[in-house]
Amino acid sequence: MDISSLAPDVQHFLGQAAYCELGEFEALARAVATAPNLAVKEGLSAAAGRALSKHHGLINEIRRRGHEPAAEMAPFVADLDEFRRKTSGADWHELLLSCYLAGGLLDDFLIRLSDGLPRDIGPRVAQLLGEESGTDVLVHELQTAIENDLALGSRLAMWGRRLVGDTLLVARSAMPAADPADSAEARIEPVFTELIAAHTRRMDGLGLTA
Amino acid sequence: MDISSLAPDVQHFLGQAAYCELGEFEALARAVATAPNLAVKEGLSAAAGRALSKHHGLINEIRRRGHEPAAEMAPFVADLDEFRRKTSGADWHELLLSCYLAGGLLDDFLIRLSDGLPRDIGPRVAQLLGEESGTDVLVHELQTAIENDLALGSRLAMWGRRLVGDTLLVARSAMPAADPADSAEARIEPVFTELIAAHTRRMDGLGLTA
Repeated sequence: MDISSLAPDVQHFLGQAAYCELGEFEALARAVATAPNLAVKEGLSAAAGRALSKHHGLINEIRRRGHEPAAEMAPFVADLDEFRRKTSGADWHELLLSCYLAGGLLDDFLIRLSDGLPRDIGPRVAQLLGEESGTDVLVHELQTAIENDLALGSRLAMWGRRLVGDTLLVARSAMPAADPADSAEARIEPVFTELIAAHTRRMDGLGLTA
Repeated sequence: MDISSLAPDVQHFLGQAAYCELGEFEALARAVATAPNLAVKEGLSAAAGRALSKHHGLINEIRRRGHEPAAEMAPFVADLDEFRRKTSGADWHELLLSCYLAGGLLDDFLIRLSDGLPRDIGPRVAQLLGEESGTDVLVHELQTAIENDLALGSRLAMWGRRLVGDTLLVARSAMPAADPADSAEARIEPVFTELIAAHTRRMDGLGLTA
């Protein structure tokens, strides 16, 4: 039971992953612009820079293969824009939680999916996506806010539970279309179980019930 | 007649330059989020990354000197936020022009001002600020839009003339307070003449009358 046998198409994978990281960057940049103080703004700007650098790393892979980044990302714009719109949150803390949880889950997912890429690119992409994402500042801000405000904590717990659903859906739509004849769904299942377990650990770390 | 004799205070300079680049990053990130197509979004994201990397380079210089970036930037927040608010523009093209003209003028100014910093930091900061800023995409988008729309061209020409005033004012406020006994103003004058000449060349390059 392994995702790698699902072998995503390389261009499909790169276009989607690149647009995914660009969306993460845009969400973090919005969090920078609306940060409550300079120290937090500063920490978030580093996290935004990490997402942007993952995006540019993927863009370089697309160019190296002789393709145009914009053309490769285009098929994923509608779904991912809709996803970012739905998960942008009602306030700064919800936005922060989205950046942390959805960003973490999508990175995990893409890294897992990259197992199925050819050997000349899969491991390099996995390393790029696995680079330190600078989200300590998000965790710290969320933990502090949750500790000091019970009502915010329960609202964010609900928001986190909603996020996981939306994020798994957009991740699922990223998978290569399953051949109805094979048991793709059955092979995907354990991967999603792993992703949910990692998500739950992130929620726990914040003091939220998943 | 040289700005270097004005010898800016190092911490003052670094705090202000760092917040200046953060503001440029935020403006470019907004331009990324509202870009009309993926190719432009992609180009702008690279420019945003350059501004962010200048910002982080300056933050590193502040840390290296044992200071806290947030504390060093704090004195400049009010003026620079007000400047960014006034120059954010009424639409995407105005925002783009602000990023290009104000960003260019402020970089020129800070590089010039860094002449007065101690030898162990001035040249390094000048090199950092002088790095390629990836603004070709802004120039290309603006040129194309101006060529195809006369009304937009004359609106942007007006916007550019207003920008130079606001930007010179915020740059001037960045200068070490002049000792009334010396002729600081007279020494600053030729520097501002140079900055305006470079601004005029940028306007000309876009097909706008300065």
